[in-house]
Amino acid sequence: MLLAYDGGDFRGWQKQKDGRTVQGVLEEALFEITGQPQPIIGAGRTDAGVHATGQVAHFDTSWIHSLIALRQALNSLLPREVAVRAVELAPRGFHARHSATARSYRYTLLESPVRQPLRRRTTFHLRPVLDVERMQRAATVLVGQHDFGGFGRPMTPGGPTQRRMEHVRVSRRGDEIHIELRANAFLRHQVRRTVGLLVDVGRAKREVEEVKAVLERSPSAPVPWRAPAQGLVLEAVHYPPDEEIECMRSLEGRNHEEQYQNLRA
Amino acid sequence: MLLAYDGGDFRGWQKQKDGRTVQGVLEEALFEITGQPQPIIGAGRTDAGVHATGQVAHFDTSWIHSLIALRQALNSLLPREVAVRAVELAPRGFHARHSATARSYRYTLLESPVRQPLRRRTTFHLRPVLDVERMQRAATVLVGQHDFGGFGRPMTPGGPTQRRMEHVRVSRRGDEIHIELRANAFLRHQVRRTVGLLVDVGRAKREVEEVKAVLERSPSAPVPWRAPAQGLVLEAVHYPPDEEIECMRSLEGRNHEEQYQNLRA
Repeated sequence: MLLAYDGGDFRGWQKQKDGRTVQGVLEEALFEITGQPQPIIGAGRTDAGVHATGQVAHFDTSWIHSLIALRQALNSLLPREVAVRAVELAPRGFHARHSATARSYRYTLLESPVRQPLRRRTTFHLRPVLDVERMQRAATVLVGQHDFGGFGRPMTPGGPTQRRMEHVRVSRRGDEIHIELRANAFLRHQVRRTVGLLVDVGRAKREVEEVKAVLERSPSAPVPWRAPAQGLVLEAVHYPPDEEIECMRSLEGRNHEEQYQNLRA
Repeated sequence: MLLAYDGGDFRGWQKQKDGRTVQGVLEEALFEITGQPQPIIGAGRTDAGVHATGQVAHFDTSWIHSLIALRQALNSLLPREVAVRAVELAPRGFHARHSATARSYRYTLLESPVRQPLRRRTTFHLRPVLDVERMQRAATVLVGQHDFGGFGRPMTPGGPTQRRMEHVRVSRRGDEIHIELRANAFLRHQVRRTVGLLVDVGRAKREVEEVKAVLERSPSAPVPWRAPAQGLVLEAVHYPPDEEIECMRSLEGRNHEEQYQNLRA
């Protein structure tokens, strides 16, 4: 399933005992259609307030109608804040999270002397002061295999904090500044803390060199603050070709993704 | 005052006994600053759900600080759904509604096979079927001085329904279709019913000629349906130069605007 949602109306992706979550409303809608309670597994556990235009999720079902009918049935039952963009039959052994090889996020800053009510739910508003070239220089430092533990924490406490940043791009479009990031995986809050630090570099509160200090876990490194959730969108989750996913089937266990990386290397 | 607001969070501009309105929250903020209860008069009484990026409003006050301080004080007290973009000293005799010579609105349609949650609050979603050239042909019929009583009703029951449409433009921008309208004044629901009819022309459910029939109040004319509020934005209110406004001061009474038009003609 390819999904879009307005995170402003949810307490994040992951199902909770209290509070409305994206996974929760999706599982309810699926249950209403198929009559079978089935967990829906998302590629990225987006936080409360974080949006998606390209979240991917998988589930098992024995419902036997067409995929288009399933999409329509889901969309007619889901609240307007969530949309199923597409439903496809997954290759054997597919797992929305474990099979993914990369994630793409976009963060949008709005530079404006006065806040803009109609854009407050999808941008982070700042006064116009940012030096985009400086921000891009700092962003480039992040590209490559690094310890990102200074930017976020792993989902499992004590887990590895090495990640491979494939791409970071800072660009201006009218009064917006877009920060696009792509990595094999992200630590919790990594994107928002990265944006916090890049904003500080952009307004000359931090030096480009301090980004390196955070990667090196230097004692003098700043602790990056977390940019607010509403500017962040999960835009895409990337997967290898179906044949590779099928050949991965035999590899099991907790380090599934790591094994997969080794296999590809 | 130049104002922007997200109409989705308000029951329209105009103060009501129950329910949160833009005028209501503005008057509360102003009272908190000045300690004087003062009515705030808006140029356009936007309906519930209708947005603004260029609403204009006026008020009297004896508060003696700078205009920038007033703007900042208002913005710090107002909810995030409203922003004061600018505060200026009005010319003598200025009245936000009566002095206005034209209003500009924009309506945004979103053409997409599936709804898009992040754009649902500012666009009206339709499947991709619209013929924009056909819509523009129909829109052109509306330009000029006409009886728009088939599209809306006057604010005062039994009042005149003649209006002068100065400009209507239908254009595509990526997956959006924008309908921009400018008239000396609009009847209640006129823009949204105009959009409803243009959409029907665009999907070939109505003929261009039927637009003419509505203007002629022909018995066979269709009754245009009302496009939903969330696609509509009041973008600008237009005023004559300050000297002309000052010279208007002596003209009083209910037909203020009409007298003004005569004076200019």
